[in-house]
Amino acid sequence: MPAGEAAYPEVLGASGGQVLPAGREVTVSVPASTANLGPGFDTLGMALGLYDTIHVRTTSGGLVLHVSGEGESTVPLDSSHLVYKALEGGLRAAGIGARGLEIECENSIPHSRGLGSSASAAVGGLVAANALADNALDDERLVQLSSEFEGHPDNAAAAVLGGAVVAWTEAESGHSPRYRAVRVPTSEELRTTVFVPEFSSSTAETRGLLPAKVPHADAAFNASRAALLTVALSRPEFLLAATEDRLHQGYRAPALEQTTELIALLRGRGFAAAVSGAGPTTLCLHTGDLTATLRSDAESRGWKLLDLPVAEGARAK
Amino acid sequence: MPAGEAAYPEVLGASGGQVLPAGREVTVSVPASTANLGPGFDTLGMALGLYDTIHVRTTSGGLVLHVSGEGESTVPLDSSHLVYKALEGGLRAAGIGARGLEIECENSIPHSRGLGSSASAAVGGLVAANALADNALDDERLVQLSSEFEGHPDNAAAAVLGGAVVAWTEAESGHSPRYRAVRVPTSEELRTTVFVPEFSSSTAETRGLLPAKVPHADAAFNASRAALLTVALSRPEFLLAATEDRLHQGYRAPALEQTTELIALLRGRGFAAAVSGAGPTTLCLHTGDLTATLRSDAESRGWKLLDLPVAEGARAK
Repeated sequence: MPAGEAAYPEVLGASGGQVLPAGREVTVSVPASTANLGPGFDTLGMALGLYDTIHVRTTSGGLVLHVSGEGESTVPLDSSHLVYKALEGGLRAAGIGARGLEIECENSIPHSRGLGSSASAAVGGLVAANALADNALDDERLVQLSSEFEGHPDNAAAAVLGGAVVAWTEAESGHSPRYRAVRVPTSEELRTTVFVPEFSSSTAETRGLLPAKVPHADAAFNASRAALLTVALSRPEFLLAATEDRLHQGYRAPALEQTTELIALLRGRGFAAAVSGAGPTTLCLHTGDLTATLRSDAESRGWKLLDLPVAEGARAK
Repeated sequence: MPAGEAAYPEVLGASGGQVLPAGREVTVSVPASTANLGPGFDTLGMALGLYDTIHVRTTSGGLVLHVSGEGESTVPLDSSHLVYKALEGGLRAAGIGARGLEIECENSIPHSRGLGSSASAAVGGLVAANALADNALDDERLVQLSSEFEGHPDNAAAAVLGGAVVAWTEAESGHSPRYRAVRVPTSEELRTTVFVPEFSSSTAETRGLLPAKVPHADAAFNASRAALLTVALSRPEFLLAATEDRLHQGYRAPALEQTTELIALLRGRGFAAAVSGAGPTTLCLHTGDLTATLRSDAESRGWKLLDLPVAEGARAK
């Protein structure tokens, strides 16, 4: 398991507050998430039952990081590591500090695939800090802090609150944005299958494909479908219509050829499919099993299929 | 009470089907509605507890129309009357006919104010026809027919289904649009106050003020707020944020100066206010009483205030 040690302040987190003794431990389980759900660009997210696990132990000094699983050979093992940064931010927000930390990440959420791994890392670190701080931070604060860290409130809020969420941003000039989110009911029958490819995708790159302006009719279309989707999550018979979108998927299609093709195939057969996040993972919402033909068809084209339940938010044990 | 008689086919409605005997009577109560609710341009509607009443009696021949109340001096008293047209369409859709009709409309819904009076007329006529046809048409069909008649599915669907609705349009090339709608839960605490001015407004005119294109960020903003509004209708603490809009109200403000001013006043005091339909009526969603100062302030500027509950859909008695 790759591990690293890094330069570390004398006290991590808040200076002047309570300093945690060495030997305090917490384990956090944080779900993956899908975002940009159909018409809900930058706003509709959902937690998915695929988890990263983060073990944190306070020590008498320094930072030690271990990462196994997804990203083990690529993520930085120093103070730029997102879980560490979020932990530090969480401790500071809660007004406590730690002399040293040992962090062990067991990652199952694929990176750069559109499953919110960065948001999950930020949420995981914050929830670990919050557990060490006897839950000084409420969900609203966790949504705010994790969204600030990561920039995608629909992913971050889903990983905090669990279930499906509507996330939104309240901006006042001269103030930093306030990230807010509320959970939306989902049907007990709702199932997701994510189709994960081998290749990855860059959010920054695909975001560059979005136009500055869109037809008013398309904007009205997405407002209508996004409203419908919040209903369809508990009334799955409307999911196919409710996942139609004119604001992002079409514009990004040139950078997501295989994803676009798979979505067309699934939708053509009546399944509500959409790009997960900025892709390239494809999300399919349904209430029963996909057909065996459809599964083997997709697998033969190199997609890895994961059947994931809608998940609860990150939890410390 | 103004009344009129008009040229009339031998059998109104479906030819070749059952012809209703003279003397069948039905009374329909149909609510007003608000549409374009905040960010939900062309999609979010809500039925309001202000009713037109329509009495229909089958006769042995001809059409007699009586109209009292709102519109009594302006609506046509012939076969171009919307209630009559909808009744005729409803009978045809249900496969029955009538030799003659006497229609009496007692109108309380102000015309051309943004309270959906045309949609209510269409829905009222259809529901009356449906009652004469022993409810041969289901709600889905009534939503489709009334939306076709009137062109505003968010108003029409609200008047059919009652409560708050998400209405949407499914269009396939070569087919006429399919209008669909689903009811959204609302909080028992939700109250509305509508501020109705003396002057009226033309939907066609205000619609002309909308731009062909809008910023992508504004489109994403409205998708987010429209999704949030479906939640906020049962979680009123989110109503102020959830009624923010960037797709229609700002563009139409030059034609709705007094409405825009009143909305700013109400929102500035923390009340979720928005243009009702295409205006000029102002809708305010809240959970308690507006302050007496605010009420008298608005009344002194010429607004008539109506406190209306969220209503059920049109019903035949």
